[in-house]
Amino acid sequence: MSRVTSAPAEDRLTDQLAFAVEIDKLKRIIRRNLLMDGSRRENDAEHSWYVATLAMVLGEHAPPGTDLGRVVQMLLVHDLVEIDAGDTYIYDPAAVAAQAEAERAAADRIFALLPPDQAARLRELWDEFEDRKTPEARFARALDRFAPILANHHTEGGTWPLFKVTAPQVLEKVRLIEEGSPTLGAYARAIVEQAVARGHLSE
Amino acid sequence: MSRVTSAPAEDRLTDQLAFAVEIDKLKRIIRRNLLMDGSRRENDAEHSWYVATLAMVLGEHAPPGTDLGRVVQMLLVHDLVEIDAGDTYIYDPAAVAAQAEAERAAADRIFALLPPDQAARLRELWDEFEDRKTPEARFARALDRFAPILANHHTEGGTWPLFKVTAPQVLEKVRLIEEGSPTLGAYARAIVEQAVARGHLSE
Repeated sequence: MSRVTSAPAEDRLTDQLAFAVEIDKLKRIIRRNLLMDGSRRENDAEHSWYVATLAMVLGEHAPPGTDLGRVVQMLLVHDLVEIDAGDTYIYDPAAVAAQAEAERAAADRIFALLPPDQAARLRELWDEFEDRKTPEARFARALDRFAPILANHHTEGGTWPLFKVTAPQVLEKVRLIEEGSPTLGAYARAIVEQAVARGHLSE
Repeated sequence: MSRVTSAPAEDRLTDQLAFAVEIDKLKRIIRRNLLMDGSRRENDAEHSWYVATLAMVLGEHAPPGTDLGRVVQMLLVHDLVEIDAGDTYIYDPAAVAAQAEAERAAADRIFALLPPDQAARLRELWDEFEDRKTPEARFARALDRFAPILANHHTEGGTWPLFKVTAPQVLEKVRLIEEGSPTLGAYARAIVEQAVARGHLSE
């Protein structure tokens, strides 16, 4: 976290607080999946907290040498683009394709509220998460996919029966989890098998 | 984030996921303050995300040498005890006193769901936050106090007029912000002065 000062300190604080006010909106972006008690749908801000905290407690299941501090930072900012672009349901391929451009435009606008050095640093974290080329990004992605599967497991299938999701569709996401963490991937695969057996997912 | 393995890997994952399921409840603990659009009260999970992310962007206003990664971790877990103990309104002195014991009992229960090495590490983070003796804890505390003041500033006083809070009461919290970050403390003090001038806070 750099301390480069490229503008008077007061201007930097003004820009940082404009960003702080803007990102409060993430609390109003609603996701598909439910809380673990099934009481309501989750929002992006609480989801971001959840996966960042999971990174702290599940870090030993990342490949050795993974920088978990960077994973946490990536997860804290990974959904900010949804303030403009909205949440995309991952089992809707048309929506997923259209979303990519909207999210890039959102990243251009939202991170640029910060002083330039910080805007560049957060944009780099977001690009890294999207590109999935580093162990940090792949582990962050794995947690991002793992959390809703765990929530569905604890809410009798949650959104799966509701949106008629099938086991092969979920197993495609499980492969992304396996890329970031074989252990979590195996656990997610076992959840899918159990969900099929219980009739919460169709084959 | 240690990789010490004191139990077979599978048992560790089982305990870690029991913790993951438990902490989902933080999304249902409701705080006093409002979102910045005034639409509803904030919950502890989205608040925790918000202050952890603020640590990433306001870190340069902490004393030089502050370990911001530790600040982020502290903020991610600082409110978990409220799953059992509930949220305490900081302007209710009787509630604040009764709360301390309930929060310690909650910490004993919740962190102990994790494998022992991780339980000890998270408990240490929480104790450090509570004790306010390190620059990391004081900066984390400053952000925890700063966020609702910023939200009230953007919602015409928010919860201040609603609960008849006075300027001297808020200035007592501002002193805690100053202890962690003189810059953020000065900014919070200016917010209070403006709130008095606008009639959102009584002198």
